[in-house]
Amino acid sequence: MGGYNVAILGATGMVGLEMLRTVKKRGFPAASLKLLASSRTAGKVLSFEGTEYPVALADPAAFAGIDIVLSSAGEAVSRELAPEAVRRGAVVVDNTAEFRMDPDVPLVIPEINAHACRGHHGIIANPNCSTAIVLMALAPLRDVATIRRVVVSTYQSVSGAGKEAVDELDRQTEASFHGEVVPPGVFKKPIAFNVIPAIGSFREDGYTSEEVKMTFESRKILELPELAVSCTCVRVPVRIGHSAAVNVEFDRPVSPQEVRERLARSQGIRVVDDPATHLYPLPVDAAGEDDVLVGRIRSDLSHPCGLNLWVAGDNLLKGAALNAVQIAECMVKDGLVARSKVS
Amino acid sequence: MGGYNVAILGATGMVGLEMLRTVKKRGFPAASLKLLASSRTAGKVLSFEGTEYPVALADPAAFAGIDIVLSSAGEAVSRELAPEAVRRGAVVVDNTAEFRMDPDVPLVIPEINAHACRGHHGIIANPNCSTAIVLMALAPLRDVATIRRVVVSTYQSVSGAGKEAVDELDRQTEASFHGEVVPPGVFKKPIAFNVIPAIGSFREDGYTSEEVKMTFESRKILELPELAVSCTCVRVPVRIGHSAAVNVEFDRPVSPQEVRERLARSQGIRVVDDPATHLYPLPVDAAGEDDVLVGRIRSDLSHPCGLNLWVAGDNLLKGAALNAVQIAECMVKDGLVARSKVS
Repeated sequence: MGGYNVAILGATGMVGLEMLRTVKKRGFPAASLKLLASSRTAGKVLSFEGTEYPVALADPAAFAGIDIVLSSAGEAVSRELAPEAVRRGAVVVDNTAEFRMDPDVPLVIPEINAHACRGHHGIIANPNCSTAIVLMALAPLRDVATIRRVVVSTYQSVSGAGKEAVDELDRQTEASFHGEVVPPGVFKKPIAFNVIPAIGSFREDGYTSEEVKMTFESRKILELPELAVSCTCVRVPVRIGHSAAVNVEFDRPVSPQEVRERLARSQGIRVVDDPATHLYPLPVDAAGEDDVLVGRIRSDLSHPCGLNLWVAGDNLLKGAALNAVQIAECMVKDGLVARSKVS
Repeated sequence: MGGYNVAILGATGMVGLEMLRTVKKRGFPAASLKLLASSRTAGKVLSFEGTEYPVALADPAAFAGIDIVLSSAGEAVSRELAPEAVRRGAVVVDNTAEFRMDPDVPLVIPEINAHACRGHHGIIANPNCSTAIVLMALAPLRDVATIRRVVVSTYQSVSGAGKEAVDELDRQTEASFHGEVVPPGVFKKPIAFNVIPAIGSFREDGYTSEEVKMTFESRKILELPELAVSCTCVRVPVRIGHSAAVNVEFDRPVSPQEVRERLARSQGIRVVDDPATHLYPLPVDAAGEDDVLVGRIRSDLSHPCGLNLWVAGDNLLKGAALNAVQIAECMVKDGLVARSKVS
């Protein structure tokens, strides 16, 4: 029989749980499934669709006999454990920023650059959640015309910052109805009934780490090393679903109709664009969906070669877990994963 | 003694109440203050700072003896009643979109184009709330370099859509904690824990009325009839305070430092821009403030002459009531209001 020994590293986090759900839902060929987490949650038992999964401690020895690791446990953990897993013969699909810009590590969105997996040395990186969602809409447009410049403003949900962040939004929001104040913890500022124009850490030049990811990861994935990208990343009080207003400048005038047609036949995209019937992408509609929703497609009246669009996608799915499992599927299909003899 | 007979039309709405508060707070020279509203709320008595104000029915006769009308009762009401007030000798500062693009009507932000009031024929228009807030940050930059193009994405609070909209956000939000759903009413889609990329009505070309206002009102107020403006307007679950990500292209490279210095000495602006200490504009901080907050000032890495900034302002104050009262103050100062002999 077939199947791979799969480990999910960071299994008790929001993305980890979606990885488990996605592996099961898509029928990924897992001969075995091992859940790994830090000492904080190891020892727990996760119950999913009637099966109980013990959560083991994520240490180097835990990767013995593992063929594929889906990893989403934070940069420090990936830095330490991903090489250990690779040393033991596993392929690691890593959802953190740790290896994304490493020239030896493919950074992959399968609909866009699955071919890049072939150059792997054991680790394949999964892109930043906002970047993945925006690029799903942008990549097909390279077939329409050359993309010169992109100006992006994001509207990012709190689940991008993990379970504690969702709890913080909920607790702050509920408290406000009782005249109480829950002070910021995960976020630096109150997130209930507010928006925060700061995600990640600040660089000297005034950009945040999140904004910089959008620029550099886009260039690597689209294989456009000179692509001009300007980005403002903003946290909004939404639970799940990242949105973005995207302004694109091409090398020639492009009509909304040709863009709509190109996107309509793109994998993983759903065009939701009928203002007359109030159809446009919403984060609450994108939540739980594999597809990235694209709408508000219209000519940019301020630039002869400009186009505006609005994107919404599930940051835990296409922005994280789904894309990671899709990468693993590609690797399996292309024979890039060695099957362990230990299992 | 001095003073003008002032009427507030639409006095029971959110902006109307802020007009009353602002008139009192700024010591506007009102000899009398008459509150007017539709038959729905006329007859009520408004209690404000220990004074009771009866609310009278807004009909043409109500404007007899009135010198200045501050109006925020909706476009249809302004269309009907503003000319009636003017006919009776009043000057009308109108907060609706009804007259804004009329070439005979000045559209004014006093810090930017107070001089335009001189050309009035009885009606002066107050700009759209997002436009006013964005332009407060943009206008001073004309002294730094020529502005070629602006790409704006807004994050607009629900109070921009009135009291019922704030109630809707609150009711939907609170219900969600009890597993209940309050269906959309004021908004076309759920606003709790969501963002809606649609404000106003849609045009044939895919733009909304709100987005078009940003373009055309900016050109009129800045007196830059060719200014290229691209805009995406988005409603966010914030009670009070509109924010915007603004990308500006100049005719030459401009440093964040010269922009910061120019803004620091602009009236009605507060530069809040120290990422190292987590200082950036937030809508919850802008709420209740007269000043528009500007921060996240940084070079646009995607364009040699580009600059990014982030703005937050109180949509009910500088976006509406405060700006209207400031217009009235200008008119008084410049002797542009005739004082009624009836009073």
